[in-house]
Amino acid sequence: MTNLHPIVTLITDFGLQDEYVGVLKGVIYTLAPAARIVDISHRIPPQSIRTAKHLLTRSYRFFPAATVHLVIVDPGVGSERAILAISADSYYFVGPDNGVFTAIFDHAANLDVFRVNPSRLLKTEIMSTTFHGRDIMAPVAARLAVGMEISSLGQRIAPDQCHRLEEVACRKISNTLLGEIIHIDTFGNLCTNIRRQDVEEFTSGYEVSIVTAGNLTVPLVKRYCTQSAGTVLALFDSHDYLEIAINQGNAAQQLHLSLGGKIVLSRTPKVILHNHFT
Amino acid sequence: MTNLHPIVTLITDFGLQDEYVGVLKGVIYTLAPAARIVDISHRIPPQSIRTAKHLLTRSYRFFPAATVHLVIVDPGVGSERAILAISADSYYFVGPDNGVFTAIFDHAANLDVFRVNPSRLLKTEIMSTTFHGRDIMAPVAARLAVGMEISSLGQRIAPDQCHRLEEVACRKISNTLLGEIIHIDTFGNLCTNIRRQDVEEFTSGYEVSIVTAGNLTVPLVKRYCTQSAGTVLALFDSHDYLEIAINQGNAAQQLHLSLGGKIVLSRTPKVILHNHFT
Amino acid sequence: MTNLHPIVTLITDFGLQDEYVGVLKGVIYTLAPAARIVDISHRIPPQSIRTAKHLLTRSYRFFPAATVHLVIVDPGVGSERAILAISADSYYFVGPDNGVFTAIFDHAANLDVFRVNPSRLLKTEIMSTTFHGRDIMAPVAARLAVGMEISSLGQRIAPDQCHRLEEVACRKISNTLLGEIIHIDTFGNLCTNIRRQDVEEFTSGYEVSIVTAGNLTVPLVKRYCTQSAGTVLALFDSHDYLEIAINQGNAAQQLHLSLGGKIVLSRTPKVILHNHFT
Repeated sequence: MTNLHPIVTLITDFGLQDEYVGVLKGVIYTLAPAARIVDISHRIPPQSIRTAKHLLTRSYRFFPAATVHLVIVDPGVGSERAILAISADSYYFVGPDNGVFTAIFDHAANLDVFRVNPSRLLKTEIMSTTFHGRDIMAPVAARLAVGMEISSLGQRIAPDQCHRLEEVACRKISNTLLGEIIHIDTFGNLCTNIRRQDVEEFTSGYEVSIVTAGNLTVPLVKRYCTQSAGTVLALFDSHDYLEIAINQGNAAQQLHLSLGGKIVLSRTPKVILHNHFT
Repeated sequence: MTNLHPIVTLITDFGLQDEYVGVLKGVIYTLAPAARIVDISHRIPPQSIRTAKHLLTRSYRFFPAATVHLVIVDPGVGSERAILAISADSYYFVGPDNGVFTAIFDHAANLDVFRVNPSRLLKTEIMSTTFHGRDIMAPVAARLAVGMEISSLGQRIAPDQCHRLEEVACRKISNTLLGEIIHIDTFGNLCTNIRRQDVEEFTSGYEVSIVTAGNLTVPLVKRYCTQSAGTVLALFDSHDYLEIAINQGNAAQQLHLSLGGKIVLSRTPKVILHNHFT
Repeated sequence: MTNLHPIVTLITDFGLQDEYVGVLKGVIYTLAPAARIVDISHRIPPQSIRTAKHLLTRSYRFFPAATVHLVIVDPGVGSERAILAISADSYYFVGPDNGVFTAIFDHAANLDVFRVNPSRLLKTEIMSTTFHGRDIMAPVAARLAVGMEISSLGQRIAPDQCHRLEEVACRKISNTLLGEIIHIDTFGNLCTNIRRQDVEEFTSGYEVSIVTAGNLTVPLVKRYCTQSAGTVLALFDSHDYLEIAINQGNAAQQLHLSLGGKIVLSRTPKVILHNHFT
């Protein structure tokens, strides 16, 4: 496939103060001069594989087919951990085998996974033990962007040989649904692991759902603006997960809630009132 | 008009730690593969329409004709507030109708304003109540970038129907000109609402102008470097507004001044000395 | 040379909250519509010429030939300091003559330096005294990106007329090698001025090298991961300079070390054990 405008996205924990991200881009443009590079985030907390996984999972589908998603959050750099090149859905993924690709392994179609063999593609004048993003992963991403066959990059391996992060699923315990905060965004909105579908199944045939975050009871609404500014609320976010927020405020700061904080939904049986007069 | 390199600029309060900005770019590149996307700022303070307006006003003219300026600072997301698509000067503007476009309405030529009708252009599999930037505004910006007729996006409305922010103008009260700090930049420079033209009119025929910021008297100079490092000064910034700064220092921090702080100019009548001896 | 995809990189102290970087890009795209712009960093500490030099030195070689590296850290803006346009190695460099290009002058080949004469290339409706990045340097970079002859931009000057920053070299004093911390990165890794070559020469024929940072004795290893998480270590970074780090931790914070902090290597004569039994 000839791709006039191949895209490479970047998710790293490199921050924006050093030259690291710029160097990645220099390496990519050198090998793939027509590429477009999109920063998804470079402000992953250092070594937070879980945050990198969260952002990748929520963003990769919004890009054109053939986009190469490069994830460099790599606490094991220099070790024997594998570097993966993955083809899945209509995308490519490149990064260390440490769990960042858990959602791809679990949910993507047409999964094809390769363990990158650096010696196959690099004539490395430079090879560090500390910056495999520059020396291996960016070159691999650039090669995929210009149409190199993924199977030429290394050895095919079975997806179930790869690292996964354990997902913390929400749990139903009689009349409560118990979830937790899995991400806090720039606005202080609290993202939970409770899906719209979980809530709908849980509340089907029941009267009302009540959401508790910390010691607060929070109304479940459709839009931020149905509550006045400063009011705590729960709604389904743009990925259909339950989110606790404060309209025009910062829920994390104001409610003193943090990652792992418990979110509880309760239900009461629906009372059917028969109207005898109709 | 065929535009080989259409540009879409972004001003948002999304920050850089989450995937939000990357997702906007994925949506734009999907619909406008040849676009170039320029980040103006994603660090608008959350919901600060006034800061977004300030940055847009100071940047939009520096881009090539046909650039699409997309502004997503949207405290009313999910409400009935309109989303606007505007053609003005030689640019396009897209964003919520909340005052971010005040300067465009007040100063731009060839103004043509449309209320976006999302149903006209989107075959939305996805439509959230929390992320209209992704689901409506980025697609609208991308369509304008690839040359779609702006009139096809919705209904033309009169500019005076749109929201404006009240401008805080500087005021002349006898021999003082009273302004205030309207923006503080990265360097701690204090941007005021006093234009060079205001100062020139105010001081014409008068002896000297004295600038007071807080309790300090500050010299009005032409360049930072006319004062030694660490000295407080006033000069006209790159948009010809009066700015209070410290040469190689941070005026906001060192003077403890903040948004809304008063800046006063004083004048004294010019004394004409007649030389009787020539 | 026709360059389909000319690259302009940016190193500034403008930060990311204001419109300054966006405006630079608008100016560049206006004059060089096909350019690609790469942010190396906009988070240079205000006026830190030394940090800008460090990042430029570590990044410029990773870009394709003909890349234009634009560095705008300019405490002398508005003064008589020169603006330079440099051709060196296969790159161009543009920025103020204040020492940011020290490493280029000292190490690059085919050095050709010009003092930019703004009146030669600008029909400036706008010319500020505070934002030469926008009004002079970005236009110069854009012109180089589209192939304008560098010699047409101003007057050739001798490199030894240009400002240099004094390099702090590491020193050998009998059996110690004394260096210092010259940069601290996002991860809190401590970058020193001690090269691998310095260490190899110093330790050649000697028994062991011991690295001391603060009051700590630190093992010299090959990879972060040879030490358990949380352990202090020394290794050679991706540019072959000695770095003090904590595996998966922040050395600067945890060791309370900062710029200029001393790093000492010691050596002891190698004791040759003669085996009399072979």
